[in-house]
Amino acid sequence: MIIGGSASQKLAAKIAKELECSLIPIETKRFPDGERYVRIKGKVDEEVTVVQSTGYPQDENLIELFLILKNLKSMGVKKIKVVIPYFGYGRQERRFKSGEAVSAVIIANLLEAAGADEIFCINLHEDNIREFFQIPVHNLSAMKPIADHIKETINDPVIVAPDKGALGFAREIAEILGCEYDYLEKTRLSPEVVETKPKNLDVKGKEAVIIDDIISTGGTIVNASKILKEHGATKVIVSCVHPVLVEDALLKIFAADVDDVIATDTLRSDVSLISVAQIVADAIK
Amino acid sequence: MIIGGSASQKLAAKIAKELECSLIPIETKRFPDGERYVRIKGKVDEEVTVVQSTGYPQDENLIELFLILKNLKSMGVKKIKVVIPYFGYGRQERRFKSGEAVSAVIIANLLEAAGADEIFCINLHEDNIREFFQIPVHNLSAMKPIADHIKETINDPVIVAPDKGALGFAREIAEILGCEYDYLEKTRLSPEVVETKPKNLDVKGKEAVIIDDIISTGGTIVNASKILKEHGATKVIVSCVHPVLVEDALLKIFAADVDDVIATDTLRSDVSLISVAQIVADAIK
Repeated sequence: MIIGGSASQKLAAKIAKELECSLIPIETKRFPDGERYVRIKGKVDEEVTVVQSTGYPQDENLIELFLILKNLKSMGVKKIKVVIPYFGYGRQERRFKSGEAVSAVIIANLLEAAGADEIFCINLHEDNIREFFQIPVHNLSAMKPIADHIKETINDPVIVAPDKGALGFAREIAEILGCEYDYLEKTRLSPEVVETKPKNLDVKGKEAVIIDDIISTGGTIVNASKILKEHGATKVIVSCVHPVLVEDALLKIFAADVDDVIATDTLRSDVSLISVAQIVADAIK
Repeated sequence: MIIGGSASQKLAAKIAKELECSLIPIETKRFPDGERYVRIKGKVDEEVTVVQSTGYPQDENLIELFLILKNLKSMGVKKIKVVIPYFGYGRQERRFKSGEAVSAVIIANLLEAAGADEIFCINLHEDNIREFFQIPVHNLSAMKPIADHIKETINDPVIVAPDKGALGFAREIAEILGCEYDYLEKTRLSPEVVETKPKNLDVKGKEAVIIDDIISTGGTIVNASKILKEHGATKVIVSCVHPVLVEDALLKIFAADVDDVIATDTLRSDVSLISVAQIVADAIK
């Protein structure tokens, strides 16, 4: 049995279809004063899977998720698997300055208090977030469906990480496709001048695919794209798992002469073309 | 030591002033992607009081409150008193239809899980909400400061509850002021016709003060006001504890020939003229 929260309606339906199991009808709306209303409109089994991303509006999606989880427990559900395709508040996972709230830990604690028994996420921003939970947490990778999409749409690509932190994603995709990969390395030439360029590869005349886990404001991607074009890439395609895409990020990226943007459906967006339904279905079944 | 959440900054400062205790500086903002950031910028004692209303935007104010509470506990605070002047999600305090999430119970559970040790609210919509908590919950009444304000501004008022449910508020104020009170009673004259009028009082030639706990869309108040004017009240003043005031509610009320609207500062609004700081200070000291 699958229940979709309002942030992940279509993905929940796709997962249910993959698993040939039923999608429980749920009514979720806001009262005129802004309070969330949740009603589970069907009988529930002892085990249920809830699908809800906690991207923007994070706080509304979280409270709705808490209401769903606690409600299911009060209806007698024994085990709840929670699929959180995009885990919001994952970026503050340590205390950088004294007195800071470590929101990733706090949200983890609250999810457990709300009744989650097992959690499935796609490409957590930091894998150590799993350690904040007492319950099992599975950090699934979306690189396989992204690689499959690239294979179908681009001939002979090179995969480029915009910085060293994302190199693992580029390697994972390149190994699936059997192609080359690299990352953009920053070198400080003088106190004022930083040069950023591909570490090893010559991208001249090639179609470059940038890969990152999250595209947020788009700043990193716009810079990376410019550099690849300057170095002679014929096309630049931007790919990511989580299209957070703050405000006009997508416009900025297209304005920077990027040829295409592709992302998964962990979050809803204009570019959520690749579904993670299959990998979620394989993990929870 | 007092900490104010972003929904109750001024009220927190007033309470700190009443108690002559320090207001701990706190930084709270949103990242570009919408996630809340909280930082406590000072040393904390073993006991701290946090002030945060959970009115609109309820979910944002709740998540911020959870972040503050959990963060304080991780900083070594032993006891947290939480002042929630307006307790959001208080209206769904039972399951009216099968499968409904009883949000008042769920929010109570989460507040405890987040680290609240004792809670102070003003005029909870239902007093039984206190029973949803394991920790002590104090349900304070704002009728004294409202009565004091009426005394200073209106000569010889009559206090009117818009329905029987609010009669207790009218009685409480009338007893403080030593004046008359009543409620508007609905009588079904035929299957199609309902008459609503003051149960006992003749309001002709008098200044009527309507009192309710919450003004939400304003519909109840607009009707009550029209009826009192039709029955000859010279002035109608509307008073409430919690000015929820959804969207254009205040405009609708003034357009209905109401002479004035007064409310407390449990929520921020144009009419939050009466402070509950003193009664909160008396309760938590």
